[in-house]
Amino acid sequence: MSSSISLEDITKAQARIHGYAYRTPAYRAFSEESVWLKMECFQPVRSFKIRGAANKILSLTDDQMKRGVITASSGNHGLAVAYVAHKLKMNATIVLPENAILEKKQMIESLGARTVLFGRQQDERMKKADEIQNSEGLIFIQPFNDIEIITGQATCGLELIEDVPELQSVFVPIGGGGLISGIATAIKLKSNQVRVIGVQPEGSPSMYKSLKIGTLSGIEESHTIADGLSVRKPGDITFSFVKRYVDDIVLVSDEEIIGATTQLLKKEHVLAEPSGAAALAGLLKVRRETGKKERSAAIVSGANISKEMLSKIAQ
Amino acid sequence: MSSSISLEDITKAQARIHGYAYRTPAYRAFSEESVWLKMECFQPVRSFKIRGAANKILSLTDDQMKRGVITASSGNHGLAVAYVAHKLKMNATIVLPENAILEKKQMIESLGARTVLFGRQQDERMKKADEIQNSEGLIFIQPFNDIEIITGQATCGLELIEDVPELQSVFVPIGGGGLISGIATAIKLKSNQVRVIGVQPEGSPSMYKSLKIGTLSGIEESHTIADGLSVRKPGDITFSFVKRYVDDIVLVSDEEIIGATTQLLKKEHVLAEPSGAAALAGLLKVRRETGKKERSAAIVSGANISKEMLSKIAQ
Repeated sequence: MSSSISLEDITKAQARIHGYAYRTPAYRAFSEESVWLKMECFQPVRSFKIRGAANKILSLTDDQMKRGVITASSGNHGLAVAYVAHKLKMNATIVLPENAILEKKQMIESLGARTVLFGRQQDERMKKADEIQNSEGLIFIQPFNDIEIITGQATCGLELIEDVPELQSVFVPIGGGGLISGIATAIKLKSNQVRVIGVQPEGSPSMYKSLKIGTLSGIEESHTIADGLSVRKPGDITFSFVKRYVDDIVLVSDEEIIGATTQLLKKEHVLAEPSGAAALAGLLKVRRETGKKERSAAIVSGANISKEMLSKIAQ
Repeated sequence: MSSSISLEDITKAQARIHGYAYRTPAYRAFSEESVWLKMECFQPVRSFKIRGAANKILSLTDDQMKRGVITASSGNHGLAVAYVAHKLKMNATIVLPENAILEKKQMIESLGARTVLFGRQQDERMKKADEIQNSEGLIFIQPFNDIEIITGQATCGLELIEDVPELQSVFVPIGGGGLISGIATAIKLKSNQVRVIGVQPEGSPSMYKSLKIGTLSGIEESHTIADGLSVRKPGDITFSFVKRYVDDIVLVSDEEIIGATTQLLKKEHVLAEPSGAAALAGLLKVRRETGKKERSAAIVSGANISKEMLSKIAQ
């Protein structure tokens, strides 16, 4: 397994996931001059996670496919794995947090997957999934720390740079780092002129901290409204991609994340979950602080919002 | 000008509007077995209106394009005209109702178009736009009663029948009838097996009434939460298409429309305005009444919802 990704790897992934993931549009925002929004929230599972999951599962051998897949997820990766498995008529098991959003659980089950509720943090769920995998002989589909997953997410970056002319910077949310690893690779392989900026919640700055000190490191606790970005320790593979390709990481408060989610809903008429609007929150923060209105894009990475959060955002 | 549309006319329109309108996905609903949703709410202007507007404006002569365009609209058609004009660097004037949704007005103005507020009903706005057109020499872009507009909307039907295998019925919202005229033409030219069902609000049943009595006729008053479907008199051209190609029209209450809008938001994680969810309301009503779960699609036609309505739906 190589720890680098070529442009050819990404275009191959693009062909592989065709018919599973969707080529989402990038639209100019109505509410912000020279801001572009990459609509991953328009995917069939309402998040970018379908790209990596499809690329990974479609790369399995026939024997592996027969055994079935398992994963641990706060929801969107699990939904993506369930969706791809459903299309391929494979068995899938998804380990969700005890406090999983009910709608996400129902969406996963509507695709015929088995759900298991366990723990509250990503690392706890990973251990549980590992146990089930060993006892049942299933194939584990990593949520982010996997080269095929990262290559799948990279297709998003390739589309973005093809579709938005004269792009100057891209803002990407970071949980475990799979999406930004893929996007940064695609972008930098195409152009060194475009800066790639990661965005993490202030209450969950694991990749930010790791990048600043130059060593992969975790955080004790993670508290953020953006549940999809709550990861206490990034992966070693994603960390190596971030070190190599990402220009900077900015932190945003829960208040800023809610502000961006509201702006997307009320001014752009696009539904995003807080994790899905975090990149826009980072973009808007950098604009406010620098006063510069360069041509930037934000990945709107997902729309699987809880009813409670929705009612708060829509007030 | 022909009053019929061929498959070749539709594929030509498809090529013409490429790069303006988007080929939207059709997804299986998570919440309803064998229901497919055609996501016109994912268009750059968040409604299907971009298809007709792009086809019409791109069919103008160079001289007509130089003069600039004008239209009357409750919002979505105006936004679409403004968007296409902006892309083509043309002048555009949009006559909106006095009680226009502020967000729609702002979106239109963010595209550099002039807005004029006048009256509350579509026919009043049409007269006002006609006056301005005459005094300023602009080109009037009809919202629905125009063969090029209908041909543009037909591209939506062509995509749907290509993308959803073994489709049995399609539910389409009706205001002036442009969308259903186009979709029904495309569907019936491809397959006589697929039924096309129109959906109108109980409080604005102008096409329903016209179809039942067999003669184009208007209604005195229109009262519905689905502002985009509030048209007191259908067009003569759209009426002739509906008579020829549409199998039936069902009426839905405001309560049923709100229910479908809520279901899209909370269970499918897709934002739609009430007019945009009316077709799903009709589909669900027919399912309840017949008990049949055939493979059906509903056009989710737009997402430009007001803040007030959003907060009501999201509660």
